[in-house]
Amino acid sequence: MKDIKSITFIGAGNVATHLAKAFFNEGFDIEQVYSQNIDNALLLADEVQSIAIDNLVTLNSNADLYIISIKDDAIESVLQQVLDKNIFITHTSGSIPITIFEESGFKNFGIFYPLQTFSKSKTINLLEVPFCIEANENESLLYDLANKLSNSVHLVSSEQRKKLHLAAVFACNFTNHMYAIAEDLCLKNNVNFNILKPLIRETAEKITLNHAKDVQTGPAIRNDEKIIANHLSQLDDLINYQEIYRLITQNIQKDK
Amino acid sequence: MKDIKSITFIGAGNVATHLAKAFFNEGFDIEQVYSQNIDNALLLADEVQSIAIDNLVTLNSNADLYIISIKDDAIESVLQQVLDKNIFITHTSGSIPITIFEESGFKNFGIFYPLQTFSKSKTINLLEVPFCIEANENESLLYDLANKLSNSVHLVSSEQRKKLHLAAVFACNFTNHMYAIAEDLCLKNNVNFNILKPLIRETAEKITLNHAKDVQTGPAIRNDEKIIANHLSQLDDLINYQEIYRLITQNIQKDK
Repeated sequence: MKDIKSITFIGAGNVATHLAKAFFNEGFDIEQVYSQNIDNALLLADEVQSIAIDNLVTLNSNADLYIISIKDDAIESVLQQVLDKNIFITHTSGSIPITIFEESGFKNFGIFYPLQTFSKSKTINLLEVPFCIEANENESLLYDLANKLSNSVHLVSSEQRKKLHLAAVFACNFTNHMYAIAEDLCLKNNVNFNILKPLIRETAEKITLNHAKDVQTGPAIRNDEKIIANHLSQLDDLINYQEIYRLITQNIQKDK
Repeated sequence: MKDIKSITFIGAGNVATHLAKAFFNEGFDIEQVYSQNIDNALLLADEVQSIAIDNLVTLNSNADLYIISIKDDAIESVLQQVLDKNIFITHTSGSIPITIFEESGFKNFGIFYPLQTFSKSKTINLLEVPFCIEANENESLLYDLANKLSNSVHLVSSEQRKKLHLAAVFACNFTNHMYAIAEDLCLKNNVNFNILKPLIRETAEKITLNHAKDVQTGPAIRNDEKIIANHLSQLDDLINYQEIYRLITQNIQKDK
């Protein structure tokens, strides 16, 4: 297959917007931008000199690659509406397996998954974003394409991607919830949460060079039962937090 | 009371070492360095042109300030061994209340608590480390002193410090355990944990400008029961992780 020079985006949300702009800046043609909501499609199409569409019947077959970047549970229905089954088609989801394409009759397909949280308000340096690539036929084409945006491109099977996604729930979603509990405790007790931010930063930085297990600190790993009991008693009227404190403490001690 | 120009350190561990060096570099005299282990005392004393001692009987009363930086449960016994009850004495602990000094007969005392994880192998920029200050008589002297090392100095009562310490267990110790679980899941499934590190960094950065509660992402907050069930089934043979996954997910959903 020839090199990828033009791309159509199915979706105009955060991920599609970040990717489309980055490809446009790298000199790629953005052939079409589809969104259910024509205003969203227009907004992005305008930024990348493309054509906005809101009906998949008007999707043309001119692009070298199609990137679907929409909500997980809408992917299957969109795939059924794409009529030309010979296009090179991919999605950006962390959890939908590659088999979904074959099930919808496509022959040339892959995954183009940037592992990062994108928000419209915050610019992300794509160079540092890991891209997880998988494809049935044209894996090297997709790999090279991701390499134009990022220094961190990885071949990752659907099975591995599933595990990565599970691990990310702990490392990111649940971590954020720990921050939220800490912030709530500060708020409830008139303490300035900002005081904890340098420590939060250092905790995240520490594991870039160490195994997290090896740099565990705090009362649980020290088996400091006096402080643990004191902390649990401070959470007496916050039963959910108390239960989380107890369970994670036990698990840290079990892992020692 | 006159300005602080000379300091004696009781303790020669990570925190004492970081502080003593920083004060020495700022032109302070380090009068004496005490450690139970004379080798440790010598090591630090040597770096800051000070006198090493390993017996509190030889502690002199010449310093303007005494900073105790040893394990929490050794503080009380050390305080009893310090004979001159008229010195200006402080400790660097996050969890020991200020009342401990009065109970040991001191008249002029305070807390000098740098809220950061210190490891000998890693240099820390003290300028960004929050210092939590409390004192019975000479609070402004301690405050000004901390200001010589750091841009982030806070007056924090013992009660607030206790809450801050509890919050830090969630924001830092438990967060690190989430990283450890994620790393373990990657290891068990032959996935490269490094792929998650940019996401971990971004998660920690996001909350510097947002409330953690407002930037919660993932299947729990989306009520994506299909993915949650799938994740729980992947943890079938890792019961501890499954229990933690379930509990935190429920709590994220409860907080919505």
